[in-house]
Amino acid sequence: MPTEQTNCIFCKIVAGQIPCYKVFENPAVLAFLDIGPVSEGHTVLVPKAHYERLDQCPPAILAEVIAALGPVAKAITAAVSAPAYNILCNNGSQAGQVVKHLHFHIVPRKDNDGLFTQWPASKYAPGRAEEILQKIKEKMNI
Amino acid sequence: MPTEQTNCIFCKIVAGQIPCYKVFENPAVLAFLDIGPVSEGHTVLVPKAHYERLDQCPPAILAEVIAALGPVAKAITAAVSAPAYNILCNNGSQAGQVVKHLHFHIVPRKDNDGLFTQWPASKYAPGRAEEILQKIKEKMNI
Repeated sequence: MPTEQTNCIFCKIVAGQIPCYKVFENPAVLAFLDIGPVSEGHTVLVPKAHYERLDQCPPAILAEVIAALGPVAKAITAAVSAPAYNILCNNGSQAGQVVKHLHFHIVPRKDNDGLFTQWPASKYAPGRAEEILQKIKEKMNI
Repeated sequence: MPTEQTNCIFCKIVAGQIPCYKVFENPAVLAFLDIGPVSEGHTVLVPKAHYERLDQCPPAILAEVIAALGPVAKAITAAVSAPAYNILCNNGSQAGQVVKHLHFHIVPRKDNDGLFTQWPASKYAPGRAEEILQKIKEKMNI
């Protein structure tokens, strides 16, 4: 497990040095209410070990994270009577990641709540999707 | 594995009945370019088996999904020279889920790209977080 990051607020929450509204905990993950919620019940779920991005976190830990997301999402949406939820994981500051400890937002959603309305879908110019796909294949190393 | 859904567009893509720009495939998951991209390289990753929501999908399949997200995200962001990415999974129509087959968006992000700027963080009134936490604990059954 990576060394706890001394300046990471989520590591401090995991270590009990900063209090939280704890929603769920097991040996690998911790879930707690976001104190700046975009909707009531908005929860953050983190691996206890410090990794910055999803692509840096080992699959075994990611499996623990995603196994917990569903049950936690069901409980928080039931608690606030929300019929739906978003799972959001921002990786990198340009994607809106503020705390540099991998985390997943679980955001309860209701009819006409006005959240996340921005979805500027576009179309590829002819041939552009093929070009991008070729570049992806050159980078793919799975 | 659940029966293929005859009216599900993602099941048809998985079955090869509808073409796609295939980014990655293994026995459990398929990733392909979103044809209505919000940024170049925007990719959708699905379990091949049909489940509507994350909370309905077995942990073993979710583990395969999340294990593939990181490597695919690294490849597509490298291909389009994006330093960051969002992972987004909408569950339920009120959360923006259009295709009722569990899927994860991987959206490459760049500086000042203007995407997803809406994040209306609020604060809980005194005592409200405690009330919600109590309700969540009543619903939690992990």
